[in-house]
Amino acid sequence: MPALQNDLFIRALLQQPVERTPVWIMRQAGRYLPEYRATRKRAGDFLTLCKTPELACEVTLQPLERYEFDAAILFSDILTIPDAMGLGLQFSEGEGPRFTHPITNANDIDRIAELEPINELEYVFDAVRLIRQQLNGRVPLIGFSGSPWTLATYMVEGQTSKEFRKIKTMLYKEPQMLERLLEILSASISAYLTAQIDAGAQALMIFDTWGGVLSREAYLKYSLAPMQQIVNKLLQHKTAVEVPIILFTKGGGTWLPEIAATGCHAVGLDWTTEIDHARASIGDKVALQGNLDPTILYGTDDTIRTEVKKVLDKFGKGNGHVFNLGHGIQQFVDPDKVAVLVDAVREFSPAFHQPD
Amino acid sequence: MPALQNDLFIRALLQQPVERTPVWIMRQAGRYLPEYRATRKRAGDFLTLCKTPELACEVTLQPLERYEFDAAILFSDILTIPDAMGLGLQFSEGEGPRFTHPITNANDIDRIAELEPINELEYVFDAVRLIRQQLNGRVPLIGFSGSPWTLATYMVEGQTSKEFRKIKTMLYKEPQMLERLLEILSASISAYLTAQIDAGAQALMIFDTWGGVLSREAYLKYSLAPMQQIVNKLLQHKTAVEVPIILFTKGGGTWLPEIAATGCHAVGLDWTTEIDHARASIGDKVALQGNLDPTILYGTDDTIRTEVKKVLDKFGKGNGHVFNLGHGIQQFVDPDKVAVLVDAVREFSPAFHQPD
Repeated sequence: MPALQNDLFIRALLQQPVERTPVWIMRQAGRYLPEYRATRKRAGDFLTLCKTPELACEVTLQPLERYEFDAAILFSDILTIPDAMGLGLQFSEGEGPRFTHPITNANDIDRIAELEPINELEYVFDAVRLIRQQLNGRVPLIGFSGSPWTLATYMVEGQTSKEFRKIKTMLYKEPQMLERLLEILSASISAYLTAQIDAGAQALMIFDTWGGVLSREAYLKYSLAPMQQIVNKLLQHKTAVEVPIILFTKGGGTWLPEIAATGCHAVGLDWTTEIDHARASIGDKVALQGNLDPTILYGTDDTIRTEVKKVLDKFGKGNGHVFNLGHGIQQFVDPDKVAVLVDAVREFSPAFHQPD
Repeated sequence: MPALQNDLFIRALLQQPVERTPVWIMRQAGRYLPEYRATRKRAGDFLTLCKTPELACEVTLQPLERYEFDAAILFSDILTIPDAMGLGLQFSEGEGPRFTHPITNANDIDRIAELEPINELEYVFDAVRLIRQQLNGRVPLIGFSGSPWTLATYMVEGQTSKEFRKIKTMLYKEPQMLERLLEILSASISAYLTAQIDAGAQALMIFDTWGGVLSREAYLKYSLAPMQQIVNKLLQHKTAVEVPIILFTKGGGTWLPEIAATGCHAVGLDWTTEIDHARASIGDKVALQGNLDPTILYGTDDTIRTEVKKVLDKFGKGNGHVFNLGHGIQQFVDPDKVAVLVDAVREFSPAFHQPD
């Protein structure tokens, strides 16, 4: 593999000095880009796009052709593991994911406990290999997975939920069943992310989309502890070059010190937490990634520039900041606005990395 | 009006000593109760239920027949004001509210600026008067409104939203337009709540359902500042007996000190904030209301009792705690579980109000 030409992102995650603040955005390969929509149309449906390494590679690279991002992120879905477990993942237009065979009882869990989903996920590792090859050292490639709690939520609810009745009934009525499901998922996700590293992922991110719907106590036990197990496994996996790990719990603003204490390298912040408050509460223990409100991209160019500047000001001087949105970019954003954001980060951020 | 026989709730909100912790639950008059579903069926549709004082009174009182709650809350909807402004409120089964004429431009705002929606809301004040009469001093009656930001969100989005694209585009692209809308709403809500007091409401709660989707800076400016204006107006409205005000921002856990500084009497907490952390961050400036995860009512009786005890323990000794859920009760909860909760609060809480 060729050496990295731009390793700003990796250095920032490892809290090493950088010349400017690296920037990428969650869902940067996505529906706001006409070229993405064209490829998706060609693929026929979303799952085919995920499962065809050439197409996944194509859409992964598309945003890098438009914008000077400092990282690429594997194009995939957070529900690949439950899909590989045979839960029957489906995406209907405008409806979000749905499982035809959700987890409803202990027998369902017995059944998936016997599986080795990683054997069904070779298409993901093929995509990672292909993207690394095509990137040719331009920027680092991020691999990812959903968190155990987040996967369990979809697997038990069977679809996107607002009230989380089924998974929380399990939590408060049959906690042992939930614990068993989370253990299975932690093991599968650890193996999945390790295999992504072996295929070429240079950093990893765990998306805990639904950790924020829990009480503090439930979060620590059912979302953070299983993520901790994964972090432990990944840190034991010896690699020639360090592979930084980012944990991101949407709505986790009040639990940042606990997230940072897992041994991860960086914590992702949604837009409801101010990055200066986050830094004050965590200290310099980990790098921080975030955290512009994605809807600011609906604002004027001036507003975008002003708000980018504010995030940089609030983080302030010092190492360990990766600029990002606080959540995925929305589909109706004008692609030109992303260029305004990236340019603003490149223009304003070097001042925060000058020696005093 | 007869004197209050049970004023525990009012005393707790005013941080006065009580013999036990008062308890009520958000949406206590709601779909989890078969008698509510029967009345709603008789009404034909949800809006008729809200707009017919006799029916609104009937469902308001239903939970008090079953449970020993320490407060009643007016049965109504948070969208009565935009409905009175002619936006065409509709509720379709399982879909949530929808406006046929949402706010899309400055002309729409000009039009509603001319209106006096309070003139169309006599049915609400009639309901308040009737409920007070029927309660006959048994427990206090809570009046309420949605917050300006929350109403604006529905009025601009036209329906429940996940991404809040339209209202946030207004915020980041045409902030003056949003500010004007919020000013109109603050004035209308102030008049609405003042009229509820005059009709007999003995405490008030402002529901800021969507404040938590904002960044801190946007929250302070577009959600909290307009609520502050309302609090100021209400505090100027002289009444024979003090009418305590509760502010509740769902997802507002990191902004509690700012909410408490408005001059309100109590702050509502969702279940993601621990009540001991809240008390530590606010001090004894205001009373706290909350904050059991509503889904705990799907748990076993033992779990419910344990979790009720935990909330009481975490608040600890001292004045100013109103027990409640952290959000509205869900429709699939078994009504018997609510009795378990209320009994647990009545059993465990006196120990926290003994002299040392």
